Formats: sequence, C-alpha cells, structure tokens
Amino acid sequence: MPRRNQHNSEELRELAVQAVVRIAESGGAQAVTARSVAREIGYTPGMLYHVFDDRDDMILHANVMLLDELAQSLDEASGRKRADRALEAICLAYLSLAREKSARWQLLFEHRMKDGAPVPAWYQSRIARLFDIVESRFRQLDSSRPSAEAGLAARTLWSAVHGVCLLAVTGKLDIGGPVPPEKMVSSLARHYARGWLAAD
Amino acid sequence: MPRRNQHNSEELRELAVQAVVRIAESGGAQAVTARSVAREIGYTPGMLYHVFDDRDDMILHANVMLLDELAQSLDEASGRKRADRALEAICLAYLSLAREKSARWQLLFEHRMKDGAPVPAWYQSRIARLFDIVESRFRQLDSSRPSAEAGLAARTLWSAVHGVCLLAVTGKLDIGGPVPPEKMVSSLARHYARGWLAAD
Repeated sequence: MPRRNQHNSEELRELAVQAVVRIAESGGAQAVTARSVAREIGYTPGMLYHVFDDRDDMILHANVMLLDELAQSLDEASGRKRADRALEAICLAYLSLAREKSARWQLLFEHRMKDGAPVPAWYQSRIARLFDIVESRFRQLDSSRPSAEAGLAARTLWSAVHGVCLLAVTGKLDIGGPVPPEKMVSSLARHYARGWLAAD
Repeated sequence: MPRRNQHNSEELRELAVQAVVRIAESGGAQAVTARSVAREIGYTPGMLYHVFDDRDDMILHANVMLLDELAQSLDEASGRKRADRALEAICLAYLSLAREKSARWQLLFEHRMKDGAPVPAWYQSRIARLFDIVESRFRQLDSSRPSAEAGLAARTLWSAVHGVCLLAVTGKLDIGGPVPPEKMVSSLARHYARGWLAAD
C-alpha cells in the first residue's frame, strides 16, 4: 500500500481508475464505491473527491478507457476490408471484447448516472466515435442513401449485437438450444447489411 | 387475507402464482421468495412446499403463464400474413409485450435455476413452441433451405430483438442518440429476413 500524498493529482486519478477496474473485475459493478477504491489504493475517500467530481465521474474515467480500447479493436477489425466484411469483422470484434473483458464491459453498460443525470459531453463524444466507425461503413455500403438511414442502421445493428453479447456473457444465449455466439453475430451482421443494402 | 386450508392444492398453486406476479411487478424478481409469496396469500412457506418442489418450481409456474401469453400474442401477430411481414409483426409483438409487462418479462429472463440446474422438460417445451413460431416462418420464407438454417435464423433474430427490448426496457437504448425501439425492431426484422433470403 503506497503512503498517502506520495502521488500528484494525475497519478492519483490513474491509480484510482486502475483500482476501479480491478474491483469491478473481482466484485462486479456494485463493489465499486469511493470507499472500496480509496481502501484499495491506500487513500481516504475524501482524497478521491479532490481529483474526481463524484463516484460517477470516477467510473466514467474507468469506462472511457474501455471505450478507447473498443474503438481501437473495432478500427483494427474494420481495417481495409470491403464495407460488408468490415461490418461483420467489427461485430465479431465487439463480441470478443465483451467476452474477454466481461466484468469491465458490464460495468460500462450497467453503470447509471446518479439521479438520471446526462453523461458529460467529453464522454458522449467517445461513444459517438464508436458509432461513427459502424455508421461510416453503412454510408460506404450505399453512399446514395440519406445519412440518417446509415445512422439508424448503425444503431440497430449495435443494439442487436449488444443483445447477443449480453445473452452470451450472462449465459442465457442457449435458451432455445445451443448456438455459438460467433455464428449468430456473423449471421446478424451479414444478413442485416445485405438486407439493408437491398431495401427499396 | 383468506384463512388457511381454505383452498385445495390446485387453488393454492393458482393463488401463489398470481402472488408471484404481483410481487415481481411491485418489487422486482429479487422480492419473490417463498416467504413473501406465503405472506401475500396468508399461508406459511411450508404450505407452499406441499404444492411446489421449491422456489424455482414456483417461479417457473408463474413464468410459463407469460410464455403462453407470449405464444398467443406472437401467433395472433403472425396471423395469415406473408412470411416476411409475419416475422416483422412477430418481432413488434414481442417488443410490445416486453414493454407492457416489463416486470414479468424481466422475471422470465432474470430468473436463474438454483445451482445451475437445467429447466424441466415441460418448461423447455413451452420455450420450444415459441421458437417454432419464428422458425416456421423462416422455413416458409425459403423452404429449400436445410431446417437447421431456419433454426439458426430464428434464434439469431430472437436474440437480436430481445437485445433491443432489454435496452429499451432498461432505458439504455438511447446511448447513441434517441431512436424509437419500434423503428429498430422493424429495421432488424425486415433487413435480416431479406438478407437471409438472399444469402447464397
């Protein structure tokens, strides 16, 4: 355990964010509190409030690291592929990350802002960047369609794939018999994109 | 509160199942215990164990009522429509029920058998009946395809639509900007079915 005041503000934020990740990985989202994080890094909860606005702010800073890792994975999966293949690869990369980092992925989606407050703009823009990776591939699939249609398609495909991931991560995908999640995600991405392209 | 021993076994089961539904509606899945159900209907928890094997058995009997209502809604929505329109109508009916009866729908999917026990055959067959409503429409869409492909398509479309419903019911669908869930579900059902039909 490090001694108090050994770190500057930036180092303390970094330590706290890493502690949030470790605590979520071992005990789930509920286990992440200012108290548990402070204990983990040997500071008082009060010290944490010098570097974060509140618990939400601390969790958002941990979650944004995963959003950035996700953006990098999706970009790499997308690569220089043809638009339809890129969409399938993006969806499969999303599934991979959800399964490999399931505790952090669940923290990302289970976290709700206190009193239903909106997430801050800096965080919203990182989410928008993720949707843009998908949306740009739909625009590329059919550049003659209004941009709003690519936006709806990206959000629909994300929600659908996210749903499959959620069922897979929580062990409920097999309710109708065993099907490998990769097969479902591929089927979803390929057929949805193809049907979208063919739509009148 | 009725007096004890006023009901025969069948009536007691019925009363208990209705109490499970009311308790889930007001307090969520966690609030459903043998104790809370017994208190609600004026019996002792011990009496419940005369008519149910355990808590799981009691909850499954409550959940199967919703599975049956769901089967009826999907059958009605499907009606005599053309296969592709029937699939869209089925998916929209699923979304409607998930939103209208969200507490019961969440009990249905959040409930996990104690010690990871498998669900009993009588319950599994009611789930299979639901998947069959969707699967039969995929078989009808292209009767030349192997039956396993229709099975995978039905499970994929269900998982995807279920994912959208889950995000809608828990207020997380708007993460990438506001989109009405009906629009997403329609887009999903139409484009997926069309893409599936066109696949090599």
